[in-house]
Amino acid sequence: MNRVDLNCDMGESFGVYSLGNDVALMDFVSSVNIACGFHAGDPGVMRETVRYALAKNLAIGAHPGLPDLAGFGRRMMAISPREAYDMVVYQIGALYGFVRAAGGRLHHVKPHGALYNMAAQDESLAAAIAQAVKDVDPTLVLYGLSGSALIRAGETEGLRVAHEVFADRTYQPDGTLTPRDQPDALIHHDDAALNQVLDMVCQRQVRATDGQWVNIQADTICIHGDGAHALEFAAKIRQTLQQSAVIQSM
Amino acid sequence: MNRVDLNCDMGESFGVYSLGNDVALMDFVSSVNIACGFHAGDPGVMRETVRYALAKNLAIGAHPGLPDLAGFGRRMMAISPREAYDMVVYQIGALYGFVRAAGGRLHHVKPHGALYNMAAQDESLAAAIAQAVKDVDPTLVLYGLSGSALIRAGETEGLRVAHEVFADRTYQPDGTLTPRDQPDALIHHDDAALNQVLDMVCQRQVRATDGQWVNIQADTICIHGDGAHALEFAAKIRQTLQQSAVIQSM
Amino acid sequence: MNRVDLNCDMGESFGVYSLGNDVALMDFVSSVNIACGFHAGDPGVMRETVRYALAKNLAIGAHPGLPDLAGFGRRMMAISPREAYDMVVYQIGALYGFVRAAGGRLHHVKPHGALYNMAAQDESLAAAIAQAVKDVDPTLVLYGLSGSALIRAGETEGLRVAHEVFADRTYQPDGTLTPRDQPDALIHHDDAALNQVLDMVCQRQVRATDGQWVNIQADTICIHGDGAHALEFAAKIRQTLQQSAVIQSM
Amino acid sequence: MNRVDLNCDMGESFGVYSLGNDVALMDFVSSVNIACGFHAGDPGVMRETVRYALAKNLAIGAHPGLPDLAGFGRRMMAISPREAYDMVVYQIGALYGFVRAAGGRLHHVKPHGALYNMAAQDESLAAAIAQAVKDVDPTLVLYGLSGSALIRAGETEGLRVAHEVFADRTYQPDGTLTPRDQPDALIHHDDAALNQVLDMVCQRQVRATDGQWVNIQADTICIHGDGAHALEFAAKIRQTLQQSAVIQSM
Repeated sequence: MNRVDLNCDMGESFGVYSLGNDVALMDFVSSVNIACGFHAGDPGVMRETVRYALAKNLAIGAHPGLPDLAGFGRRMMAISPREAYDMVVYQIGALYGFVRAAGGRLHHVKPHGALYNMAAQDESLAAAIAQAVKDVDPTLVLYGLSGSALIRAGETEGLRVAHEVFADRTYQPDGTLTPRDQPDALIHHDDAALNQVLDMVCQRQVRATDGQWVNIQADTICIHGDGAHALEFAAKIRQTLQQSAVIQSM
Repeated sequence: MNRVDLNCDMGESFGVYSLGNDVALMDFVSSVNIACGFHAGDPGVMRETVRYALAKNLAIGAHPGLPDLAGFGRRMMAISPREAYDMVVYQIGALYGFVRAAGGRLHHVKPHGALYNMAAQDESLAAAIAQAVKDVDPTLVLYGLSGSALIRAGETEGLRVAHEVFADRTYQPDGTLTPRDQPDALIHHDDAALNQVLDMVCQRQVRATDGQWVNIQADTICIHGDGAHALEFAAKIRQTLQQSAVIQSM
Repeated sequence: MNRVDLNCDMGESFGVYSLGNDVALMDFVSSVNIACGFHAGDPGVMRETVRYALAKNLAIGAHPGLPDLAGFGRRMMAISPREAYDMVVYQIGALYGFVRAAGGRLHHVKPHGALYNMAAQDESLAAAIAQAVKDVDPTLVLYGLSGSALIRAGETEGLRVAHEVFADRTYQPDGTLTPRDQPDALIHHDDAALNQVLDMVCQRQVRATDGQWVNIQADTICIHGDGAHALEFAAKIRQTLQQSAVIQSM
Repeated sequence: MNRVDLNCDMGESFGVYSLGNDVALMDFVSSVNIACGFHAGDPGVMRETVRYALAKNLAIGAHPGLPDLAGFGRRMMAISPREAYDMVVYQIGALYGFVRAAGGRLHHVKPHGALYNMAAQDESLAAAIAQAVKDVDPTLVLYGLSGSALIRAGETEGLRVAHEVFADRTYQPDGTLTPRDQPDALIHHDDAALNQVLDMVCQRQVRATDGQWVNIQADTICIHGDGAHALEFAAKIRQTLQQSAVIQSM
């Protein structure tokens, strides 16, 4: 029997600014990654998002990002491993405060945006992040790009890890994501995206942009929460997994 | 046998900006209140301050403040009780991350600056802060101005509380601090300050500005860490307490 | 012949966060107040908003606020007159950079939110803000609450001033706005709001909540840009003014 | 007759945090670069630094940096040319506000830290920054690393430029600075640094780390304002220039 987790980034509103459709999307995912105030989110948003997620029995993860609200944590910054360690410990702790205050349990950590991308390739940043997660709580699951340096660093630290795949992104023959600035980086048709998900979850393979089949591990699938289409696609992917007898859980 | 705690605000550096003389002062105090990144402090400073404090076996407290780095958390802001709750949970959690990563235990919470002052008088802010502390960890000790609304709110929540007194501030006949904008607000001579401390700790009384004796509870004494004189005064107060057979601990 | 200005707060988006319906609303107003990055707005949003406003030949104003993005500048902060002066000079200058870069001219300054409200009552804050405006450019027009301390301070400095009134807020017998926490603070029906506008502009009077007529000066009317209804009401008020032969200009 | 400018970064304090020895150093330099609140500085610090600089008749420059107070603008960020343009316009404008309020004139713009370094090499960032300077005020002088992409971009825009050299940094055979992570990056002896300055100003040459003489243009020399030694070295370099009959001016 196959099982997979569906995760979504949430809690990205800030002050008067509203973003995403968190509550509605919570009906379709099994885990949520909650922004911790550096790239998005604020204390009030964190409290509310934790409360909703607990009410729906979802696995709650910290979603630490770079200290760049203006850039939504998407702009690469040349931080040191020590700085990465510190900002991850801080943000996990901050979310932990709300989870504990609500009587819940923190389940995982998934870095956001540029921090996620840098940690997928940079061994020393990956090691610092994995160390931060372990030092705060060695039972936390570390989510990272499938097959990436971050996943390897988590395994080295003895953490449980979750290889993350993307439904709507194409893959290269070497198993990496096609960079966003290339024309075929995105999968625009839902059916193609759903088929790719089933291939990854059930066959542990993905068809790369050159047509070749590549091995891939898919423990968790990232659903994007923004865009008018997000809710509809979330419903479709959930239904597809159910029809294929894939158990959705973390 | 009398006992009292000596506490000091620490971890107030930020980025390239250095403030205070934390490591040297740690030889004289029994507990430290560590800034959590809102009014001062940053993740790297928090990590280092926690490490030093643990090495000296000091009680570690979170020192949450208003989100006002430019004003060092000293400017009153009209926040709601809900916002106070959220910013306190967030900041306790953030420091908790570093304490846990270093294998330590978080001991107390003391609000900073304008948040401290507002919570001393505003019942609803005080209640929100006490609730936040309790929700994150009901074993935490809540430090507040001796006899203030914050102390009462902590007791209502069933928290352990620490009535805080000041060595170098004068008191009014009603037991409140003389406001800083009044000419006799500060005690400028060390001997007078030390005598006031002994009166408060050993006699549970303080001589108000009108000469009258007023009852006061002194569980913890705040030592200021800034100023050239801070280290010298810290040494004197510690010596005075030892000579008077006051046990210094929390 | 009566003339009045219609103004609207704009440029309040930030990073990935979008707020308001600026471009559409620009068809109905004669002047815009552009957020300067403290309570809302960012450099990119400021550049774009200036560009659109110039394309529509609207009068451009700086809309300086308190340094409180999380609270949208709506939370009162206990700043000193010196701090008010400094933050207003800084923000006018920042917007001035974009206006000059686009070949335009800065027309006015209107403080935002809590800064606006504090300056309406606090003489020393009002004086500091008026001084800041004058020091940067004595030809700027100072917008403030009709009859308020800020307007008086502007007149004392020899600035041109614009008395601002609100279409959808009720007034007290003493000519001040009914506080928002009172049940009759808002006018919910468009017709009542439009009639109040005509009374203020053409008769220089407003009917207070107790039924009494009160004198009021209305140089500029504030249109709210948020809410689904904003665009429709903006169109109605513009049409009403035209039908009543009121010239809309600053 | 040779002439050169001595410049120093100033106004880098923030809130309660004090940095540098601005007022004392102003006796030795001919121009100052004032931080604009993104990587350092705040509105109050900007006002005061402008006032002191005007009192000493120094040329005043804006010193825009990346929006990274925690990292003092020294951490490279992957910003777009558009974002660079916007943050430079904003920061020049903000300082311009204070200069105008004080009745002065803004003289130049010198990017700070990582923004300076990125603009020295990245043609598109350099072009965006030069465009920003020109759009705000085409009479401003653009300071940049001698011979760098930023200088070329300024010349392309028709701006006056100032080639900046460093007294205490060594140069490579290709005329670039030796990267800081290399052992011979810094010149530790004052005499060697002073000789290098004279070579650069009077001979328009610098001896590279391999002993070779390299042509270099030196319009302005950067003096570092931090460190205990800063004041002493500033005095020495000024005296050396005077003894060599170099006129110090911009």
